[in-house]
Amino acid sequence: MPAHLQAPRLRALRMHLHAQHQPIAVMRTDCHVCHAEGLGARSQVLLSAGGRDVQALLYQTDDPHFAPGRVGLSEAAWKALGVGDGDEVQVRHPPLLTSLARVRQRIHGLRLDAGDFQAIVRDIVGRRYTDVHLAAFLTATAALPLDEAETVALTRAMVDAGERLHWNGAVVVDKHCVGGLPGNRTTPIVVAIAAANGLVMPKTSSRAITSPAGTADTMATLAPVELDLATLRRVVEREGGCLAWGGAMHLSPADDIFVRIERELDIDTEGQLIASVLSKKIAAGANRVVIDIPIGPTAKVRSQEAAHHLAARLTATAAHFDLTLRCLFTDGSQPVGRGIGPALEARDVLAVLGNAIDAPVDLRDRAIAVAGAVLELGGAAADGDGQRLAGDTLASGRALERFRRICVAQGGLREPPRAAYVQALPAARDGHVVGIDNRRLSRLAKLAGAPESPAAGVELATRLGDRVVRGQALLYLHAQSPGELAYALDYARQSGDIVRVDEAPA
Amino acid sequence: MPAHLQAPRLRALRMHLHAQHQPIAVMRTDCHVCHAEGLGARSQVLLSAGGRDVQALLYQTDDPHFAPGRVGLSEAAWKALGVGDGDEVQVRHPPLLTSLARVRQRIHGLRLDAGDFQAIVRDIVGRRYTDVHLAAFLTATAALPLDEAETVALTRAMVDAGERLHWNGAVVVDKHCVGGLPGNRTTPIVVAIAAANGLVMPKTSSRAITSPAGTADTMATLAPVELDLATLRRVVEREGGCLAWGGAMHLSPADDIFVRIERELDIDTEGQLIASVLSKKIAAGANRVVIDIPIGPTAKVRSQEAAHHLAARLTATAAHFDLTLRCLFTDGSQPVGRGIGPALEARDVLAVLGNAIDAPVDLRDRAIAVAGAVLELGGAAADGDGQRLAGDTLASGRALERFRRICVAQGGLREPPRAAYVQALPAARDGHVVGIDNRRLSRLAKLAGAPESPAAGVELATRLGDRVVRGQALLYLHAQSPGELAYALDYARQSGDIVRVDEAPA
Repeated sequence: MPAHLQAPRLRALRMHLHAQHQPIAVMRTDCHVCHAEGLGARSQVLLSAGGRDVQALLYQTDDPHFAPGRVGLSEAAWKALGVGDGDEVQVRHPPLLTSLARVRQRIHGLRLDAGDFQAIVRDIVGRRYTDVHLAAFLTATAALPLDEAETVALTRAMVDAGERLHWNGAVVVDKHCVGGLPGNRTTPIVVAIAAANGLVMPKTSSRAITSPAGTADTMATLAPVELDLATLRRVVEREGGCLAWGGAMHLSPADDIFVRIERELDIDTEGQLIASVLSKKIAAGANRVVIDIPIGPTAKVRSQEAAHHLAARLTATAAHFDLTLRCLFTDGSQPVGRGIGPALEARDVLAVLGNAIDAPVDLRDRAIAVAGAVLELGGAAADGDGQRLAGDTLASGRALERFRRICVAQGGLREPPRAAYVQALPAARDGHVVGIDNRRLSRLAKLAGAPESPAAGVELATRLGDRVVRGQALLYLHAQSPGELAYALDYARQSGDIVRVDEAPA
Repeated sequence: MPAHLQAPRLRALRMHLHAQHQPIAVMRTDCHVCHAEGLGARSQVLLSAGGRDVQALLYQTDDPHFAPGRVGLSEAAWKALGVGDGDEVQVRHPPLLTSLARVRQRIHGLRLDAGDFQAIVRDIVGRRYTDVHLAAFLTATAALPLDEAETVALTRAMVDAGERLHWNGAVVVDKHCVGGLPGNRTTPIVVAIAAANGLVMPKTSSRAITSPAGTADTMATLAPVELDLATLRRVVEREGGCLAWGGAMHLSPADDIFVRIERELDIDTEGQLIASVLSKKIAAGANRVVIDIPIGPTAKVRSQEAAHHLAARLTATAAHFDLTLRCLFTDGSQPVGRGIGPALEARDVLAVLGNAIDAPVDLRDRAIAVAGAVLELGGAAADGDGQRLAGDTLASGRALERFRRICVAQGGLREPPRAAYVQALPAARDGHVVGIDNRRLSRLAKLAGAPESPAAGVELATRLGDRVVRGQALLYLHAQSPGELAYALDYARQSGDIVRVDEAPA
């Protein structure tokens, strides 16, 4: 075909535009390529350079300073193509997305099979689905909930779409907490106890999505967590466990994409939750997993019934992957430990590991409960003897010692930072603490700067049932800047009692 | 609250960025507002200036040339706020969208009532729904199809969310074609015939969405169509009819928002189609409407059954709004007339109105069929006598005369432009024309430049059943630039027989 008909080429221009993972292309409104290809603002385009492809969202500009013959690229597009300034970029219509036909079938009530989910998830991980497509898929699987076969198929497709870790040794343990509880940072303690007792626990954790701190954020204040696969493997082979950030591992990448849309819709269906949790564990190479399910009025799971139902479905699905689960139902009525925020939670973890006199008892007890289950499930303790062994491992200092060695293997144990600004939030009256709102407490910690500012967050000074007097500190706000401190204080004042104090005893 | 806690202010910067109706805000990654408010790339933000609000999608930039204290605005955001360069803009979290709770209910299978649809559509028209929210709503109403009560409630909500025209006189007629048929440009002819016979037909039409030409695009080559309400009213009062672009009227604005998402998902559910068609007609003030439903293998409606079902539901819903419908089932097996593209279709229209010897017979016949139905439904002709009267009105030249007067009243009749480049697409063999692919024919006309280039498009030289010899022109491509001509030609060569010629007689 005539030369001018080969896929039109433009020259790359870095826009330094951050849009998360969304690749964006900007072209002049009068660009010949747009006209020839019939491309308009908000079209999807396929960008190609040096053998690499990426699908991008097109915007147009009539900024006179935008040079003709250029295509502006967002950071995601720039990195995906691996181009340099002025490099040639081809711009075309993206190929037809055949897997969307399966999404349409599902919308109209037909069940999908394994092949359908494979095709859909492959396109999603290839970033070929727009937000509209993703929302339609997730909505369709919420309107007609995923049945067991579909949940298994989706889980498998999510595992297959990413990396998968393999470990020597028959038993590989892991744990997961079905979110919703601020400060519930048992993971570093559990890993230390499990590894100290000879179990293999290659723990990969996520950074905060909506919470003030993820386990990876907390661990990052104690040691390097961005390990490549070779380092992670070396750490685990030497120490039996690790505490790494999973993001670099590309485990179940579809999950990260779903999470963003589910957050925007504020829907979190059981089928999706199960596929999300299990796909990450399977991809990480675990075969015995303890699931911590906190139950409470402001936690993710609100009732015993919901917890039992979720546990049953998790277990049934896991069985299809030779994955043995043990689900623990725990108290989700209030935050765990004192700190909420990366560094503050790290201090709680160190206090428990170090058997400090003032170590938060609730965090210690929860860690022992989870670790006990892990030890039993992993075969390091007889049934019923796990918690005893976990407690001894802590008390003897063997857990702290193992934790230290894991941190050193990951690049060195370090001191968590302290906040520059700390201010108390006083009780407005005498009485008892009768309620703590987990959700608003999390929001408060985020407004104070967590997790971006690792030292920022909230330090609780009271627990449910505590007797307090007017003016006594209910909690301390930690911030890195006076602006953020004032901002969080303002929210605390406006949003009523986050820690509710009542005349009536609890 | 302290001064620095009042909603943070930045200074407006025009980005000259076109993203259709999507308001976009760009802020520096290190912007104190982002940090204080906990805003990140792809957050939704509420922008306020001079008492005006608009919700926008946030992107971040670390472009060193992007001045601190500035917020970059896309054209949609810039116009919605009505700001000038450097004006103060407040940036905040958008208020909680309570209507989303109803969308979530609908996702989980609960039916919605009138109040729910009012709240949802109000937020949608207020541009407070993201693509994710819109896709979830449309998917939910496809997964569990809208029942009659819901369809009525959605239609009413869509009408209430926009402008509504009111006309003197009891009878106001209109017509609508349920798309999918290139060149089916009967509307200008029907309006001329109806108005010439004393009916009131204030026709507002849309520009092309996915097709090579909408009625408004075609009419724009013959007369001004962007009329304000006062002008439109004057034209209708003087001539009984008008042929205006509806976009300026703000009639059922929700429909335009839904259409974009439905296109991206390629779902077009019956309930949405009904609410879309009827809400526009009701808002335009019509009370007697003829619906043209072309049926054909590559048309939108593929079977008689589907057509009957759609007609029944349209009629039932319309009854709730004192709207009388008559549905015509017409042949959708091939394009109508010769031209596909704004100016080419305008020439067909003028040929029919002018009784030209070579006027396309099929367009004339369809226009008479639709006009006949309109005349009978409007009471200008006895049942069974409508087509006779429509034919006479055409033959006598009264239709052309009325059309001329309407165009003059709208600002003057003009000559449709002619393309600079025309090239024939020859038959590859002797035989009969046995098939014409409407969809690929539309794509071909768009690649040639339609509707942006009004003179561009496709001129059919053959009809189904015609005998052709090798080398004979099947169609002519019209384009405004050699590049677009070559581009369309290339598509025609690659995409196989758009006009299928077979040895076997049709």
